[in-house]
Amino acid sequence: MALTDKNTAYNRLHKSKHSFLDEDFLLQNDFAKILYHEYAKDLPIIDYHNHLPPKEIALNHQYANCTEVWLKGDHYKWRAMRTLGIEEAFITGNASDAEKFNKWAETVPYTLRNPLYHWTHLELQRYFDISEPLNKDSSERIYNTTRDLLKEEAYRTRGLLEKMKVQVVATTDDPTDDLKYHDEFHKEGQNLKLIPSFRPDKAFAVENPGEYSRYLITLGKTVDFEISTYTDLMLALNQRMAFFDQLGCKSADHGLEQLYHFNLGDFDISRLFQQLLEGKPLTSEEIRYFKFETLVHLCRSYHRLGWVQQFHLGALRNTNERMLKKLGPDTGFDSIGDFEQAMPLARFLNLLDSTDQLTKTIIYNLNPSDNEVFASMIGNFNDGTIKGKMQFGSAWWFLDQKDGMEKQLNSLSNLGLLSCFIGMLTDSRSFLSFPRHEYFRRILCNLLGTDVQKGELPADEKWLGKIISDICYHNAKDYFGF
Amino acid sequence: MALTDKNTAYNRLHKSKHSFLDEDFLLQNDFAKILYHEYAKDLPIIDYHNHLPPKEIALNHQYANCTEVWLKGDHYKWRAMRTLGIEEAFITGNASDAEKFNKWAETVPYTLRNPLYHWTHLELQRYFDISEPLNKDSSERIYNTTRDLLKEEAYRTRGLLEKMKVQVVATTDDPTDDLKYHDEFHKEGQNLKLIPSFRPDKAFAVENPGEYSRYLITLGKTVDFEISTYTDLMLALNQRMAFFDQLGCKSADHGLEQLYHFNLGDFDISRLFQQLLEGKPLTSEEIRYFKFETLVHLCRSYHRLGWVQQFHLGALRNTNERMLKKLGPDTGFDSIGDFEQAMPLARFLNLLDSTDQLTKTIIYNLNPSDNEVFASMIGNFNDGTIKGKMQFGSAWWFLDQKDGMEKQLNSLSNLGLLSCFIGMLTDSRSFLSFPRHEYFRRILCNLLGTDVQKGELPADEKWLGKIISDICYHNAKDYFGF
Amino acid sequence: MALTDKNTAYNRLHKSKHSFLDEDFLLQNDFAKILYHEYAKDLPIIDYHNHLPPKEIALNHQYANCTEVWLKGDHYKWRAMRTLGIEEAFITGNASDAEKFNKWAETVPYTLRNPLYHWTHLELQRYFDISEPLNKDSSERIYNTTRDLLKEEAYRTRGLLEKMKVQVVATTDDPTDDLKYHDEFHKEGQNLKLIPSFRPDKAFAVENPGEYSRYLITLGKTVDFEISTYTDLMLALNQRMAFFDQLGCKSADHGLEQLYHFNLGDFDISRLFQQLLEGKPLTSEEIRYFKFETLVHLCRSYHRLGWVQQFHLGALRNTNERMLKKLGPDTGFDSIGDFEQAMPLARFLNLLDSTDQLTKTIIYNLNPSDNEVFASMIGNFNDGTIKGKMQFGSAWWFLDQKDGMEKQLNSLSNLGLLSCFIGMLTDSRSFLSFPRHEYFRRILCNLLGTDVQKGELPADEKWLGKIISDICYHNAKDYFGF
Repeated sequence: MALTDKNTAYNRLHKSKHSFLDEDFLLQNDFAKILYHEYAKDLPIIDYHNHLPPKEIALNHQYANCTEVWLKGDHYKWRAMRTLGIEEAFITGNASDAEKFNKWAETVPYTLRNPLYHWTHLELQRYFDISEPLNKDSSERIYNTTRDLLKEEAYRTRGLLEKMKVQVVATTDDPTDDLKYHDEFHKEGQNLKLIPSFRPDKAFAVENPGEYSRYLITLGKTVDFEISTYTDLMLALNQRMAFFDQLGCKSADHGLEQLYHFNLGDFDISRLFQQLLEGKPLTSEEIRYFKFETLVHLCRSYHRLGWVQQFHLGALRNTNERMLKKLGPDTGFDSIGDFEQAMPLARFLNLLDSTDQLTKTIIYNLNPSDNEVFASMIGNFNDGTIKGKMQFGSAWWFLDQKDGMEKQLNSLSNLGLLSCFIGMLTDSRSFLSFPRHEYFRRILCNLLGTDVQKGELPADEKWLGKIISDICYHNAKDYFGF
Repeated sequence: MALTDKNTAYNRLHKSKHSFLDEDFLLQNDFAKILYHEYAKDLPIIDYHNHLPPKEIALNHQYANCTEVWLKGDHYKWRAMRTLGIEEAFITGNASDAEKFNKWAETVPYTLRNPLYHWTHLELQRYFDISEPLNKDSSERIYNTTRDLLKEEAYRTRGLLEKMKVQVVATTDDPTDDLKYHDEFHKEGQNLKLIPSFRPDKAFAVENPGEYSRYLITLGKTVDFEISTYTDLMLALNQRMAFFDQLGCKSADHGLEQLYHFNLGDFDISRLFQQLLEGKPLTSEEIRYFKFETLVHLCRSYHRLGWVQQFHLGALRNTNERMLKKLGPDTGFDSIGDFEQAMPLARFLNLLDSTDQLTKTIIYNLNPSDNEVFASMIGNFNDGTIKGKMQFGSAWWFLDQKDGMEKQLNSLSNLGLLSCFIGMLTDSRSFLSFPRHEYFRRILCNLLGTDVQKGELPADEKWLGKIISDICYHNAKDYFGF
Repeated sequence: MALTDKNTAYNRLHKSKHSFLDEDFLLQNDFAKILYHEYAKDLPIIDYHNHLPPKEIALNHQYANCTEVWLKGDHYKWRAMRTLGIEEAFITGNASDAEKFNKWAETVPYTLRNPLYHWTHLELQRYFDISEPLNKDSSERIYNTTRDLLKEEAYRTRGLLEKMKVQVVATTDDPTDDLKYHDEFHKEGQNLKLIPSFRPDKAFAVENPGEYSRYLITLGKTVDFEISTYTDLMLALNQRMAFFDQLGCKSADHGLEQLYHFNLGDFDISRLFQQLLEGKPLTSEEIRYFKFETLVHLCRSYHRLGWVQQFHLGALRNTNERMLKKLGPDTGFDSIGDFEQAMPLARFLNLLDSTDQLTKTIIYNLNPSDNEVFASMIGNFNDGTIKGKMQFGSAWWFLDQKDGMEKQLNSLSNLGLLSCFIGMLTDSRSFLSFPRHEYFRRILCNLLGTDVQKGELPADEKWLGKIISDICYHNAKDYFGF
């Protein structure tokens, strides 16, 4: 990689111990290298939670250029560009794809130390075999090269997944989704497992009675009966869960600021539901109760179905109203919250556990200062029935970077059993995000290798290799039953 | 230690810089080694807070096997076993001691990177001179070896303490405890100092009026008068403190989620007390006030007696009702909370300080994200009267591991004076936990040695050696006046 | 530096890789050294926020001795001395300057690992060319040497600033300040830019109606009209802002526990203001609202003026009433709070942004567990209009040390763009604090150099050198428009 200028003081004196992004990237010692290259690198990928569009997989979509496959929908990149002072026209606006790519290329060198810098060059290298740095000078060249490659069969969506040895893709789907593309793809009999996940957030998004009523109408059409009571809602959701289950669904997911701290019956949910139907807004306490009770019913159904339940906790969303009005949600104006997590989470899990209806559970944390709360919480509900029943999920969203991953892995190690961890997922909307599994694997191998190097773990390669391959592949496979 | 398979790629290439758990374990540079071996290693141990049973010391108890001395009562190990999916029968249930040991042995290799992994092998090495790894294969052998050793005189409780050069053991005792075993042991004139500590948590555990009334009856019997008013309660507690003081007690301890933020007189405590006697539950605010005012009175008495007061803050206890009913408290279902700490702690300490009745104080923190709050809080009440009057206690419970200790030591260093720190304690229920002092000392020496190595501290061995030995021994000795 | 005893085991074996405080202090690898020495070291200093007394600059004050210039007003040092058990007489009391210096000298070796240890020796080396360690033995010698040097012209305030290549000093001034010294100094036509900053905290410090009324009288005298309505207050503050602006003011600053979460109009501010004038205290909710609405008006004015607004969040102040009564505020009895930050901060910034009246903003965080909240928050309001419009300020107060700076730099890198950062400021009351810029620059260069060393950044010296010099100088220059 020609990222260096040969004529600088440093290069006259020395060569850096590592070159940037070489085959031993992030592997700081020999034991780490062996763990990665011998035990982790070649394992297939189970991406058990992401936001890939099933339609683009089913139709084996072809992308026109790198802007389409790489920049559209990637609010990480958008935030970086806005921070640098780039106009919205070049981000989500009317500029051409080539112009947008160019602006991104100019931004890349300024993202040093941000995960975008590593991801960008890793993705160019792994998918397109491009190892020169992306910047103003290389922009046009790289835009053209990638555009040409994207015309090839191997660069359609299925090819991109195959290149990364992706074995399972679990998407994220609303209860009202007809799962048509999952079904079609499944019937084709492909090797890739494309399965849906149940994300019922809209079924308890009762902040706005008008929007909620419209959602209930859509849901009613999906199940073919009118939803006019809370019981109807529960029936409809259970019917949809059965449908998702038939199509291979193994898990549900929920995005929440925090869990809730109520007793069942603190409010009369049927009355609250009627109030919503009448268009009358609930108080903030009633809204929270509504979510709480609905989640309890849903979680009991997940337990009955043997699904895994996932909770993504801690995001502060849609903080910027001006931009929300202009660009809509999920456009880069969310951040990390500091909500109370421990007590409500404990109480919620306990309520399910008290009747032995707590199914396998993954809790994902967005604020690293809560890592120890999460890592110790799972131990409260591991009851000896299943290996790693309760999981502290991999570093998520803003934390999906080296420091974030290391902190999650270290907290989990210190307070629980790393050996039972189900490992990485992309949580991404992009077909180019799969090198993040490689990134995770390198970081994991480096941590264990460093422990050996320092004499903090015995140099038992076979044992550590087994643990590594469990975390990178086998634990997830067993946990979800893929 | 034969933990490695000689036939692996790594071992063909290299030998690890350090072997696992060798004499330089955790000491990553030469200066650290010298600090540890020359200044820390041989110092006696002052274990100023633990939960050892005084009866077992007084009677010089002999353990039947390693399950009895090592696994019974150790909820750290139980949590790990449950996480791995091991049935409760093998943990706290009816399985035989040999079977339980076997299940633990199988678990050990899966605890890599958890402190259990280091503790386990450190304890086997230090007490039993066993340096092969504990796992399925070595289980029976190690079970038998340790069982035979435990029959020897040197492996009774007193021998175990002596082996570790324990000079002071401060246990944790309820005000109703008659301290019979402390007294007996004291009269024997042993070298070991076995002293009680005052833990009056039950005297303000007013969540359940029925249980509380029963406690008051017991306390009444202990002091030989009926406790029918709040004033009686205060008299009884003061009488017990005087008794504890006679038996050498130097400190009190309290376990709380957080401290309290009231003014004296916000509620009428005599009325609250009568209400409890009548079996009427208090509101959650009244409960908190009751604890607050009772603590204020207690703390003023500690000041009068010249005791040290300790507060263990931040645990979220008994999160799992199903298991609580089955197994009782302290069985591994507690975790880390995220309570508000700064303001109520400052206000509480200030109330005591405002009348100059703030005695020497140690605050222990269970959530590492509050480390800086705690480390900066002590500076607010260090008033120049006593060296290190206010202490930020050593990393505790879930944080009693390398990362946790390093974070506590670094926060304290950055925000206060590490040189005034009174150092490590086990807080343990087990006679095999004393190598945790060694673990702490190695970590401390490594931090300072690394600073020297990096040029961040001058290589002034004598000065650093003095600071190390102060933290490992002399500061605690002076602080408590042992 | 003769900090080592040649006769110790360690020194017989080895020489430390680095000597303490040599020219490569904190620079752990060759690339770091080059970045620092070639790109950072020689840049001038823009100290865009501090508490230097403008009078002492305008009058080119001469200090009698090191106690006056170094110990007076430095509550960091006072806290350390109190922790060690030194009597208040030697800290803020009646002891002589020589005695006080002596006590501080005795304390210094006990501050190892605290930033005071590095700062102390760095300041002695940089200003006085003294490289022997300060302790009991060297105390008198160093006291005398520095006293003699302080008599020289080059050791008056302006000389001290010049020695450190300080180009801009932005002080912190109350709206009632007449800025006489700024004006005089400005008229002298010095190279140094001495400019005021607007700190209106007292204009919304409404906890005590009596004190507040007295402040309003002073403010009224300053603007030459009586302030008898809230509108008068706004007019007065705007008039003062215009005056500050004329004297080159570029920014305002505010010290708050947290921001506020209201809607405009939740309370009637004119009524609250009248109530204050009548001497009637507000409720705590009303106090918060008063601050909130006043801040909104102020911030809209800052936007109109094109100023930068700064918020210092998270301090828990005046925790110790006994010492507050004795010594007044800012004497070392403040600490780190754990306030809710994310939601109220987002809501406040959003309110300003919703009408496009959010000016350039710096948020400083005192609790490192909130670093990720702050670092991700700025991304929500970077709208592409200005490079680095929203800034996560440099590690502040208690966090102004190596760990604190590294954590801030890493959080910012992971969640935002480090390349847009405006870098370091002293926030200090002392003319001897400027080596903290050097400290910051070394730490920054070391982080980037280490990334290169590990292969996590390409060894592109020119690019990294440019980024370094941007962060150390050019970004701040452009951001404030100096």
